[in-house]
Amino acid sequence: MNKRLIVYILGWVLIVEGAAMQIATVTSFIYGEHEGLYFLGVGALSALLGLLAVKVKKPKNPVLYQKAGFAATALSWILMSFVGCFPFWLSGEIPSFIDAFYETVSGFTTTGSTILTDVEALSHGMLMWRSFLHWLGGMGVIVFLLAIIPKLGGQQNIFLMKAESPGPIVGKAVPKMRNYAMMLYGIYFGLTTLEFIFLIIGKMPVFDALNISFATAGTGGFGVTNAGIASYSNYLQTVIAVFMMLFGINFSVYILILAKKFKQAFRIQELWVYFGIIVLSTALIAFNIRSLYPSAYDAVHQSFFYVSSIITTTGFGLTDVNNWPEFSKTVIMIITFIGAMAGSTGGGFKVSRVILLFKETRKEFSLLIHPRNVKTVKMDGKTIDHNVMRSTSIFLVLYIGIFALSWLVLSLDRMDFVTNFTAVAANINNTGPGLGMVGPVGNYSEFSILSKIILIFDMLAGRLELFPLMLLFAPSAWKKS
Amino acid sequence: MNKRLIVYILGWVLIVEGAAMQIATVTSFIYGEHEGLYFLGVGALSALLGLLAVKVKKPKNPVLYQKAGFAATALSWILMSFVGCFPFWLSGEIPSFIDAFYETVSGFTTTGSTILTDVEALSHGMLMWRSFLHWLGGMGVIVFLLAIIPKLGGQQNIFLMKAESPGPIVGKAVPKMRNYAMMLYGIYFGLTTLEFIFLIIGKMPVFDALNISFATAGTGGFGVTNAGIASYSNYLQTVIAVFMMLFGINFSVYILILAKKFKQAFRIQELWVYFGIIVLSTALIAFNIRSLYPSAYDAVHQSFFYVSSIITTTGFGLTDVNNWPEFSKTVIMIITFIGAMAGSTGGGFKVSRVILLFKETRKEFSLLIHPRNVKTVKMDGKTIDHNVMRSTSIFLVLYIGIFALSWLVLSLDRMDFVTNFTAVAANINNTGPGLGMVGPVGNYSEFSILSKIILIFDMLAGRLELFPLMLLFAPSAWKKS
Repeated sequence: MNKRLIVYILGWVLIVEGAAMQIATVTSFIYGEHEGLYFLGVGALSALLGLLAVKVKKPKNPVLYQKAGFAATALSWILMSFVGCFPFWLSGEIPSFIDAFYETVSGFTTTGSTILTDVEALSHGMLMWRSFLHWLGGMGVIVFLLAIIPKLGGQQNIFLMKAESPGPIVGKAVPKMRNYAMMLYGIYFGLTTLEFIFLIIGKMPVFDALNISFATAGTGGFGVTNAGIASYSNYLQTVIAVFMMLFGINFSVYILILAKKFKQAFRIQELWVYFGIIVLSTALIAFNIRSLYPSAYDAVHQSFFYVSSIITTTGFGLTDVNNWPEFSKTVIMIITFIGAMAGSTGGGFKVSRVILLFKETRKEFSLLIHPRNVKTVKMDGKTIDHNVMRSTSIFLVLYIGIFALSWLVLSLDRMDFVTNFTAVAANINNTGPGLGMVGPVGNYSEFSILSKIILIFDMLAGRLELFPLMLLFAPSAWKKS
Repeated sequence: MNKRLIVYILGWVLIVEGAAMQIATVTSFIYGEHEGLYFLGVGALSALLGLLAVKVKKPKNPVLYQKAGFAATALSWILMSFVGCFPFWLSGEIPSFIDAFYETVSGFTTTGSTILTDVEALSHGMLMWRSFLHWLGGMGVIVFLLAIIPKLGGQQNIFLMKAESPGPIVGKAVPKMRNYAMMLYGIYFGLTTLEFIFLIIGKMPVFDALNISFATAGTGGFGVTNAGIASYSNYLQTVIAVFMMLFGINFSVYILILAKKFKQAFRIQELWVYFGIIVLSTALIAFNIRSLYPSAYDAVHQSFFYVSSIITTTGFGLTDVNNWPEFSKTVIMIITFIGAMAGSTGGGFKVSRVILLFKETRKEFSLLIHPRNVKTVKMDGKTIDHNVMRSTSIFLVLYIGIFALSWLVLSLDRMDFVTNFTAVAANINNTGPGLGMVGPVGNYSEFSILSKIILIFDMLAGRLELFPLMLLFAPSAWKKS
């Protein structure tokens, strides 16, 4: 393994994080909070350490193959989360280290599950850092590095992008990776700004609008008030719901639209399945909860907001869905697992994986019925490579394995079945809220340290799509070969 | 499709079922119950119709290929269940037709979930028929036909056996299918008799002993008293627990042992994983529930009984496990999904599939780490065919798909999350009891007709391992090709 280059990348990660923290420093100083010093201090130290690593370990060979690429990405995420939690902990605003670490991982992985019982007790700087974690994690710091460091942007480093970008089929067709990474961040920045403007138009306070925009863009879900999104106007809720849905779309669609390849953009099957699931789920839930709300409009509004929030794995909530009928909760659990589109900032299993597995199953039946017909699985006109199919199936297996073990460990706590099961689902899919005690008005504070460690693992595993993180635990990955 | 041969097989199914019903007729007459007439009547009619079909549709060509073999098996099971429910319904002992049908499917598929609130209200004949359904369904009527009808026993009809025998890799190495089917039934009969003898030694009433033996052998789980197995002595409970475990073992192991190929028998990896899961689960649960019971022995006894009952998908219960701690319930849910060994009478996902998927996942990591090494998945020294791996993955996908849709429909009822989720799990895995309202002391009487229809589908789908039943719903399967 090219350990030199891994350290070099980790160095850059520290620099970027140190710089990113200054958004919180500035916020703190604007609000006259002395907590800004923690961000300034930790950020400076992080950047300094990073600079040192980058200088000392200047790589001779700027290429990471699959194993090393995956390892570098997984290590980056662990390091980022570790460094990122210090301001919370040192300032005493989150007194327990494991809680601070949980909160930071939840931020970076865009899960948005919180161990806080009173969000409003945090200072403005801390809230801003919390939301900004979502924004950084949504598109990914590694992708950011690929965009800004020319040395890393070679086609050979595709595995770095693969490890961090969600979805089964990443970037095989990417012509120039550096440009691609820049485009991604450009669109990301543009859409975030657009949401911010729409929120400001709706008279949301600037501080809230910035935070909510970051949290929506990363499909994270941290709020800045205890009432969550419920305290905002109907217009603002709708803006947020629409933008959540937009950030759950594969960014390739936007790239195609910007390139005026409309036909190509709207021929992407995953897009229509994604919209289809949203429309269907919204309709089913709205009909199911109609008697709970004064008007049909309210039922649709509530339903669309939460469907958009859950399928994109954002996790903003308007109401305690524990009070909804069982059918609506089941729809929500199913879309929790499905998740957003590949190549978006959302988590979950991804719509495209669901489509691939559906097609593979259909093919199998077709083989049963016509044994002599040789069929291939196609998506958007292209034949899906055999290896993609295999690794999609294995992804599912690994997913279930991690889920089952996590569920088992969580059940050592004193929570109930629903809380345990949905907590794992909400963390591994990076959604945030589950049901029961971890519903949209609940939080994760009651879990034991062991459970929190497991959930931290699940969030990271989910965000990096299992393989990179699991690879760190394979002993043979570290042997010299 | 060879429709003529399908009708011929369905005819034989009717004959066998008509004959099998006479065990209930005899029971009724012994106990002086007039309900015997229903068995006599329905059985005679069934056999008569069957004879007619067999005479009229004498097949010219005794071979069924995959599609037709699967269709014949699925149709046989639906027909058997339909005919088998008439005595329950006509006698008025189960007044609702859908309930009678549910109970019969639950019997045949060896699920053992009941809609009855008072089992003891049934007459002896009905109880006997209920238990005997388990025995017939455990090894399968089609396998029985393969054993007794020389015409069908050709190697070409392997698909009939494949459709009915559980597990991913059936019978490729079966030299003479007819002999193989005979051996299976021989061992099945022998083991059932052995259990009966052990139960009689423990002074269980003959009627109970017969019923319980049938229900254990088929890994079904219907009891004959409202108290279930709890009313029997400790010795009897242990006998039942051990025999449940024995019937969850792949019958190939017994065939090898009978052929004195001990080394080969005990080198089967699935066997050791199966035992390993049982020992580990028993230990974990016993430790977890130790404070609920007066002695460590009691805790282990309770734990072993229920682990054996659930992993083999029998579903006998000693106590209301809803009162066990959450951790024990999670262990139980996990082994509910794992299920018994392939080629046993048990249901579930099957231990061998779990092993295969684990190995496939390990191979994928090995490929990640050493991209140039070509590896194959091996089991018991043999390379696993690529097609087996693929269909195992697809099995998982289909399983999840059916599970999710069933869960969704069930949640339209007024039950809670735990009841709905575990009800689907308990039916698709042919286990019987779940948690919540469908726990070991509960029943399925409260579900709506729609939910019962879904659960009936799940039981049949689970017993036939998804593909045969799903094939019936593929329109293109019925087109002339």
